[in-house]
Formats: sequence, structure tokens, C-alpha cells
Amino acid sequence: MSLAPVIDATREAVRADPANAEAQFRTESTLVGVTEVDVRVGSHTFKVDEPTSLGGTGVAANPVELALAALGSCQAITYRFWADKLGVEIDHVSVRVDGDLDVRGFFGFDDDVRPGFTGVHVTVELGGPESEDRYRDLAQQVDEHCPVLDIFTNPVPVERTIAVRP
Amino acid sequence: MSLAPVIDATREAVRADPANAEAQFRTESTLVGVTEVDVRVGSHTFKVDEPTSLGGTGVAANPVELALAALGSCQAITYRFWADKLGVEIDHVSVRVDGDLDVRGFFGFDDDVRPGFTGVHVTVELGGPESEDRYRDLAQQVDEHCPVLDIFTNPVPVERTIAVRP
Repeated sequence: MSLAPVIDATREAVRADPANAEAQFRTESTLVGVTEVDVRVGSHTFKVDEPTSLGGTGVAANPVELALAALGSCQAITYRFWADKLGVEIDHVSVRVDGDLDVRGFFGFDDDVRPGFTGVHVTVELGGPESEDRYRDLAQQVDEHCPVLDIFTNPVPVERTIAVRP
Repeated sequence: MSLAPVIDATREAVRADPANAEAQFRTESTLVGVTEVDVRVGSHTFKVDEPTSLGGTGVAANPVELALAALGSCQAITYRFWADKLGVEIDHVSVRVDGDLDVRGFFGFDDDVRPGFTGVHVTVELGGPESEDRYRDLAQQVDEHCPVLDIFTNPVPVERTIAVRP
């Protein structure tokens, strides 16, 4: 199934009223174990945890792995959308994402070390009948329009409020 | 269970050999449906998908929701670690994360609109016997050391390679 009709319908909806372009997303995360977290996203629920080496029980991927999964899955889906938008045929998309992290930042052992990834490596494997040049052009469009790649590579304004209850 | 022993053991391991601070994380994401993605993280597997309004089947949270869940769960776990590190008692941690996104960026309808979040709002609810001031000091330490908050608020170096197979 091509996503072209979804793209066209969205274009028309946004043209009719620009407010239709504004999407809101919400997640709720609650600590339920030493490091085990229950996450709710609409009707979906899943767990996040640290491995035993970091004091958790390893029942699920940890937060930085989830961030890499967000990037990899966003790349894969953006390939699908932009292939359909540009009329590029594509049969296979898989994306490996590797992240390097120096734990001294998280633990506060060295304030010169950032807590997040010092480097991320995205390896995309594409299959299909088009020329390699066409897939490379597609990849460039994907990287310019992939939401989670933007979140990784450019600063996002984040505001935090805190409520303390007795 | 306090995480203080894990923190102490990590400090000693890093002191003995700084290479012990270098952690690598890997995820693999494969498109298996129109927008449905199978993700593998070590022994963990889960799905990512778009809602039907975006052409998917809505079997799981989508990539930008996963990014918000990574942030919320990372905040929750970092509260646990830093409370134990600083000796702050804490009974309850839940974190709501809201993200605003203008879909014109992703769809390429307006190149002046970024594809990622234009704003993210983190709402932390803490419960426990300590003073509000102590929890506010804890929150400041958490925000300085939370890996995924760092990924959102500061640029991460990302390199991408692509392999095309016939």
C-alpha cells in the first residue's frame, strides 16, 4: 500500500487549516521498581529498565536504547514515506543504530563528560530495483525530514516543571 | 534496594581503568509492514508503528512517542540514581512528557518548519518525606546528568552510512 494518499490528504487538510499541522504527543512514565518503569502512550503500555549491571532487572531496553530505537524506527518509516512521496520503489529497509556513551557523565564522576551519546552511527540497508544514485538522493531527503534525527542533531526547547506531594 | 553500591562499584571500575566508562548500545529496526517496524535491542524485541491517521496500523507507539518515552523513563531512572547518590529519600516518581510537533516539517510542506519537536514539556511528580527544597535541588542534579535530556537539548554527532543491495 502506498502512503501517497495519506500524504495528499494531509497536504489538503493543512492547506484548509494550518492548525491541522499541529500535533501533540504525550507519554507517562512511572517508576515501579528499582529502575523498572511503566510507560503509557495512549492505549499502548510497555516497560523500560536498566540491565542488572546497572542495578536493574533487565526486563526491557533502557532509556538510551529506547532513544536509539526511536531514531532507527523513525529513519525506517521516513524512508517509507519519502519513497512513496518521490515515487522511489523500495523493497527492504533496515536500520542499525549504534551509540557511544561515557558513563562518567551520567554518574557525575567527571563534569566535563556529557551524559548523553558522544557519537551515534546510523547504518541503513536498502533493497530494491532503483539505481544506487536514486537511493542516495532518497537518503538525503530522509535525513532532512526525519523527526527523531532532528531531535538528536539539533537542540529541542525543553521546559521542566516539578510537583512535590507529601 | 539502594543503587549506592552500583554507583560505588562503577566509580571503582572506572578509576581502575577509564575504558570501563565507555559503553556501547545498539538497536536494529526493520520495516515489516506499511509503517510497522520490528525493533531488536539485545534480547528484547518490540514494535513501532504509526497510527491509522498516518497510514499505519497503530499496533504500537510511533517513533516520536518512543523518543518522549525515552526522555520520561530516563528522567525517572535518573531521579532514582541521584536520590540514592545524594541520600535523598524518594517514594514516588512519575514523569509526563508532552511534545509539540508541526507535521509540515516531516512531510516537506514547508522547509522553514523543523521535522522534530518545536517544544517539549516535562512534568515531574515526586513523593516522599523530604523538604520541597531538597527535591528541587535533586531535580537540578537530575537535569544536569540525565542522558536523554542531554540528547534532546544538545546536538549529538550522528554519522550515517548507507548500503544498497539489489
